[in-house]
Amino acid sequence: MSEATEAAEEPSYPHLADVELIAFRADAATGDGQFQLTPALARPDGALYGGTGAAASVMAMEAATQRDALWVVTQFVAQAHVGEIIDVSVEKLALGKRIAQLRVTATVGDRTIFCSLGAAAHPRPGGLTGQFLPMPAVSPPDDCGPMPFGPGSGEGREMAFSRRLEFRMATYADAQPPGSMAIWARLNGVGGLTRAGVAYLADMVPVAISRAAGKIGGGFSLDNSLRFANIPETEWVLLDLRGELATTGYGHGSFTAWSEDGALIATGSQTASMVHLFDPDQMEQWQRSIASAAALRPQR
Amino acid sequence: MSEATEAAEEPSYPHLADVELIAFRADAATGDGQFQLTPALARPDGALYGGTGAAASVMAMEAATQRDALWVVTQFVAQAHVGEIIDVSVEKLALGKRIAQLRVTATVGDRTIFCSLGAAAHPRPGGLTGQFLPMPAVSPPDDCGPMPFGPGSGEGREMAFSRRLEFRMATYADAQPPGSMAIWARLNGVGGLTRAGVAYLADMVPVAISRAAGKIGGGFSLDNSLRFANIPETEWVLLDLRGELATTGYGHGSFTAWSEDGALIATGSQTASMVHLFDPDQMEQWQRSIASAAALRPQR
Repeated sequence: MSEATEAAEEPSYPHLADVELIAFRADAATGDGQFQLTPALARPDGALYGGTGAAASVMAMEAATQRDALWVVTQFVAQAHVGEIIDVSVEKLALGKRIAQLRVTATVGDRTIFCSLGAAAHPRPGGLTGQFLPMPAVSPPDDCGPMPFGPGSGEGREMAFSRRLEFRMATYADAQPPGSMAIWARLNGVGGLTRAGVAYLADMVPVAISRAAGKIGGGFSLDNSLRFANIPETEWVLLDLRGELATTGYGHGSFTAWSEDGALIATGSQTASMVHLFDPDQMEQWQRSIASAAALRPQR
Repeated sequence: MSEATEAAEEPSYPHLADVELIAFRADAATGDGQFQLTPALARPDGALYGGTGAAASVMAMEAATQRDALWVVTQFVAQAHVGEIIDVSVEKLALGKRIAQLRVTATVGDRTIFCSLGAAAHPRPGGLTGQFLPMPAVSPPDDCGPMPFGPGSGEGREMAFSRRLEFRMATYADAQPPGSMAIWARLNGVGGLTRAGVAYLADMVPVAISRAAGKIGGGFSLDNSLRFANIPETEWVLLDLRGELATTGYGHGSFTAWSEDGALIATGSQTASMVHLFDPDQMEQWQRSIASAAALRPQR
């Protein structure tokens, strides 16, 4: 075997950029691996951020097959907490010449934290390629402010909890489509956008569901279902989100994800338990109360 | 315990209407069960029809928890064939007071045929309820013909392979949205529409992807991801399908499902391997060749 061939057979997955985001150590033979839940990968309350679970599933599937993830759905089963080591194991349900069908189970000890199903695939030469939707016309990232709501932009700060994640609220050039909200998102300090990167930044449907219902807040995602195209180079990703419906406390929504140049790079959908909802009036009243209380607090 | 209480505790799932569609025998305690793949539940080539797998997963999740399915993604791993008995087992990953998180594995002997992830839930009293999208304006079912294409309507016959399934091609009242096609679907001889019934009739995204690409044909679904609202009484279901993109032979698309009265009853998405595609011209030429050959065939 020549040196050139050997070099070509170096594992391509997980991508270096992905390991910068989530320090996932994968076994080269099986793809099984583990990562520690750090504060940067957790929600402000120290629990697993959904985007981290979805991205780790993508990384594990790609590492196990050395193929690009095609679609991945991740179900969030139980909470993990900052400091814990999450073991991610990949089961190869069917390993075809092109398509690999996979099942992922992530555990901390004997607790199942998240599970995934999905496929990764080698390209089919000459296979159908095309984009059948136009990019929605929205304000460019440089003309958009941080996620704004109410006096304190509390919602924006809450969502951009990680220094790696940045969100900006876009406005539609034409009439706002029903149930829709548009967000520009980017990852900072990560070398290039990948499928795992898109999974990391796309856990935003619950916010769109509450917005569609005229509320502020969100809920907790039960799952994140993602379908990927090829990912071109782009700094910002447009998430065109759509809150679709809610039934007795459970909401569904979807999104398309776009490069700055108008390439459709992923689609997705989520179901969420919509338990953290407030009326905008109520929220403003609370924020005024908090501000008053802060003004009265003795100086330390 | 009074007789009335006992009667109220009779298992409500699987629904009778669902068992009329798929003769799924569920163990009352575990929800695990089995069904035989009959010709009515198979594709014309005798292999498992994707909608059957998705519907059986919904039935198993509901039987195991006695709760309505909230979302279910079903991955099609390997083929089963007419006559085979498919065993469906349900693993309760997390069993909350309201939300049950589930994983389904369907096997024939030691072959995994399909897998699912999903949740079933009891309603949350006073929980967020709303519909944030308007129904698309399309021609009513009575004004629509069977799925038409080309001289022989071959595609329509192919898709309505089961006498239980009927499809009609709807036309949009306004401009056809990019990548979209609208189909009215109904189940015949089944007592009422359920979540499993919607799963059974909603395996149509691959057709929408090929249409969006200007082709005839379809592909094989790798999965079917479904999210359910409450299902009102309706004879026909409108599938508003959208072919979104294809990359090197793999296509993604989504749909919304509507009652005749305009209630959004489900949303879904699928990824498919797009391997059975023809140009319309090529198809017409073949059909003419077949017709000529038939005319020349000696009478028996």
